[in-house]
Amino acid sequence: MLINTNPVRGTRDYLPEEMRIRDAMQAIILRSYLNNGFTKIETPILEDIERLDKSDGGENLSLIFKILKRGQKLDLKKENLTENDLVDIGLRFDLTLPLCRYYANNRAKLRLPFKVIQIGKVYRAERPQKGRLREFYQCDIDIIGDSTINSEIELIHTTAKTLLKLGFEDFTVRINDRRILFDVIRSAGFKDEDILSVCISFDKLDKIGIEGVREELLQKEFPLEYIDSFMASIAADDSKGLDGIIEYCSDRHVIDQLQNVIDSVEKLSKGKYKIEYDKSLVRGMGYYTGTIFEIVSPEFKGSIAGGGRYDKMIGNMIGEDVPAVGFSIGFERIAEILLNNDNKKFILDSRRLALLYDIKDPFVDVIEKADEIRERGYDVTTIVKAKKLGRQFAALEREGFDAALVYGETEIREFGD
Amino acid sequence: MLINTNPVRGTRDYLPEEMRIRDAMQAIILRSYLNNGFTKIETPILEDIERLDKSDGGENLSLIFKILKRGQKLDLKKENLTENDLVDIGLRFDLTLPLCRYYANNRAKLRLPFKVIQIGKVYRAERPQKGRLREFYQCDIDIIGDSTINSEIELIHTTAKTLLKLGFEDFTVRINDRRILFDVIRSAGFKDEDILSVCISFDKLDKIGIEGVREELLQKEFPLEYIDSFMASIAADDSKGLDGIIEYCSDRHVIDQLQNVIDSVEKLSKGKYKIEYDKSLVRGMGYYTGTIFEIVSPEFKGSIAGGGRYDKMIGNMIGEDVPAVGFSIGFERIAEILLNNDNKKFILDSRRLALLYDIKDPFVDVIEKADEIRERGYDVTTIVKAKKLGRQFAALEREGFDAALVYGETEIREFGD
Repeated sequence: MLINTNPVRGTRDYLPEEMRIRDAMQAIILRSYLNNGFTKIETPILEDIERLDKSDGGENLSLIFKILKRGQKLDLKKENLTENDLVDIGLRFDLTLPLCRYYANNRAKLRLPFKVIQIGKVYRAERPQKGRLREFYQCDIDIIGDSTINSEIELIHTTAKTLLKLGFEDFTVRINDRRILFDVIRSAGFKDEDILSVCISFDKLDKIGIEGVREELLQKEFPLEYIDSFMASIAADDSKGLDGIIEYCSDRHVIDQLQNVIDSVEKLSKGKYKIEYDKSLVRGMGYYTGTIFEIVSPEFKGSIAGGGRYDKMIGNMIGEDVPAVGFSIGFERIAEILLNNDNKKFILDSRRLALLYDIKDPFVDVIEKADEIRERGYDVTTIVKAKKLGRQFAALEREGFDAALVYGETEIREFGD
Repeated sequence: MLINTNPVRGTRDYLPEEMRIRDAMQAIILRSYLNNGFTKIETPILEDIERLDKSDGGENLSLIFKILKRGQKLDLKKENLTENDLVDIGLRFDLTLPLCRYYANNRAKLRLPFKVIQIGKVYRAERPQKGRLREFYQCDIDIIGDSTINSEIELIHTTAKTLLKLGFEDFTVRINDRRILFDVIRSAGFKDEDILSVCISFDKLDKIGIEGVREELLQKEFPLEYIDSFMASIAADDSKGLDGIIEYCSDRHVIDQLQNVIDSVEKLSKGKYKIEYDKSLVRGMGYYTGTIFEIVSPEFKGSIAGGGRYDKMIGNMIGEDVPAVGFSIGFERIAEILLNNDNKKFILDSRRLALLYDIKDPFVDVIEKADEIRERGYDVTTIVKAKKLGRQFAALEREGFDAALVYGETEIREFGD
C-alpha cells in the first residue's frame, strides 16, 4: 500500500538550493552574534509539560505539541481521562523558557552577565496558513544578570547590525515598556488582574484592527467605559512621543530609561535604521516585565524580530529574581524575504565541481582524482558521464555547479565565465 | 512554588565551552561532506505516526515519542481507547525514513544520483543510561538512485576521511551483506519469515554475548537445532574471510561485489584505517537489503558510525524501487570520545576579547570602541570592570577568553602568550 509522502501539516521539506541559502543566512547570523560577544548554547526541544504550562507564554500555551506518556506511566483505563493524565512532555514553543530553565539548572557554572545565543527549532500547533509554520527556527540572543539598560542597548544594536549584514535596509525598531503600557491600562480603569488579558487582546491590533480589539474586549465582558477610555488614550496624538504619555505614568524613571535606550540606539544606528517609541506595542508573551521591542520592515507585514525584558521568569523557578532580557529574530520571516530577493550573495560554500566519469573508468582512480581536486579547494561530486555532454554541462550549470571536468581530460570547464 | 529545572530525562543541556567544541566538530563534518560532493537538506523532526510505524525500524519502533492529537481530533470519551486513537504524529527516530519520504515527495525536482547530507536531532525513548541519550544528533550521508557499489565505496571513503579529519586513528570498517547473512540463517533451517527476528536478536551480540543471543532465540521458541547450526556457522574459522562463507551463499555475484568494495576501500585508505569482512555484522534496522557496514574504534565500545543499503524503502512509498544506501555518524559517540581527548584544536571561532568598562563610562562610546575592535577580527564582549583587575583577568582567561582591554587604555592584554 502506498503512503502519503507530504511532510506533516505545517512543516516543510527544504530543497538543496534553498538549504544552501538558509544555512548561509544562519551562518551570517551566528557569526554576527559571536562577533558581538555572545556565546552559544543548546537546550533540548523537549520540556516537562508542567514547566511549559506554567510559563506565562500567552496564547502559545494553547499551541503546545504534547507527548504521550510511555510504558507503565500511560493508563488508558483510568476513569474520566484528561489530557493531563496522558502527557508528561511537550515541545518547546520558544527559546526563552528553556533558557531560563537552563540558567537555573547550570547557574553555578555560569558567569553573570550571561550573554547567550540560541539558534533552534520551536513548535507551535498553529492553524497552518501562509507563513505560519508549525516547526520553525528562532535565532535568539539574551543577556541574563544585568538590570541596566546597557543590555537593551546591546541586544538592539547587535540584532540591527545582524539584519544590516543580511542586507536589510529601512527597518524600524519599535520600543515600549510594559510598565508604561500597564499604567495606561490602569488609568483607563482596568484592575491589575485584568491587565494581561487586555494586553493579549490588544496585541492583535495588527491582525484584527482597533475595532477587532474593541470587540474582543467587549466579549471578555470588560466595562465599555474602561475600553473606550483605553482606546482614547491609545488613539491620542502621537507626535509628542514619550512626552505625550507622561500624564499616565506612575514612575518618571521608567520614561527616562526608555528615552535613554532610544537616544543611545539612535546614535549607534548612524542613520542606517530607525528606532521609535510605540505606545501601542504589546508583544504576546505574558512573561515580559519591562521594555518590549520589535523590528518591522517595509518588506514584511508583521515583525521580523521581537523581544523584551523578563525579570521574573527565572525567579519563578529558583525563588530569587535574576534580571533578563532577550531579542529573537524570526528566521522564517527573514528567510522568506531574502529568498525572494537576490540571494546568491549569501552562499558561502566553496566552488562546486562535477567530475564526470565513464562507468568503465576504474572508480578508485576516479575518486583519487576527485580527492586531488578537493585538496585544491573545490567541492567535487563524481557523476556518471552522459552521452550528450553539452546538455549535461548545461544541466549542471543550472543546478548550481561552478565547473566540470571530464575524467581523463586535463582542462576544467568553468561555467558562467 | 519552585519547579524542577533538570532537563527532561535522557536529554542534556550543553554548556558554552562544550558547545564551542561540538559546533566546531559539526562544522568539520559538514565541510568534509560538502567537500566530497554531497549536498545538505533538512526534513521536519515530526513525521506521521503511520509512516513511522510502517518503517521497518526494528526495535526503534517501540521507542517512538508520540504526539497527542489536538483539538476536535482528540476524543477521550471513546470506548476502549488505544494509543492509536490518541496520536497522529511522532518524533523521527532516525534520518533515513524522513529522507525516503523527502525523496518520494520531491523527486520531480531532484537529479539522480542524489548525494545528500543530513545533520539533525533524532529521538528514541530508550531507558536512559550512560551514553544513551533520548535526544541526539546524527550526521548522515546517503546516495539515492545508484545501484552500483560505487555508492558504497564513496560513502565509506567519505565517512572515513571525515573521521580522520576529526583526529580519529586506528579505526576499522566492518562490512557484511544482508543477503549473505540471510543465506547463512536460511542454511541453518530458519524460515524466510523468521529471518528478521533472528537478525534482531543476533544484532545484540556485542551487548549480551553469544549466550545471550542463544537464550533470546530459545525464548522466541525457535528449534534448538536451527539455533545451534546457526551458531556453529557463525563461530566457524574466521581466517578465510569471504572465502569461508561461499558454501552458504546462493549468489556468487554478491560475494564478488562485497570483495570489490573491500579491495577498493583498502586501496583508498592508504593504510590509515582498516576494512574487514565481518560475518557476524547485522545492524539493527529492518530495512537494510544488501551491504551493511559500521565503524568501530578502540576508544569506544560499540560502533561510532553505521549504515547500509535499503533498496526497497522508497519503493514501499511510491510503488517503484529506487536504490539507496547511507552511512550515519553517531555524533554523540564521537563527541564523547573527542571531548575526553585534547579538544582545543577543534575550536574554529576567531579570538575572543573582553572589553572591560566602568559603569560610569558612556556606554555608547564603549560599544563604538568594541565595534572598532570587532572590525579587526576579534569577537568582543563588553563586561563591567571588577575592582580586582588581576583576578578578573585570570578568571577571563580560565573562561576561554584570548585577550582583554580596559576601556580608555590602548594596550590589548593577550592571555597565555
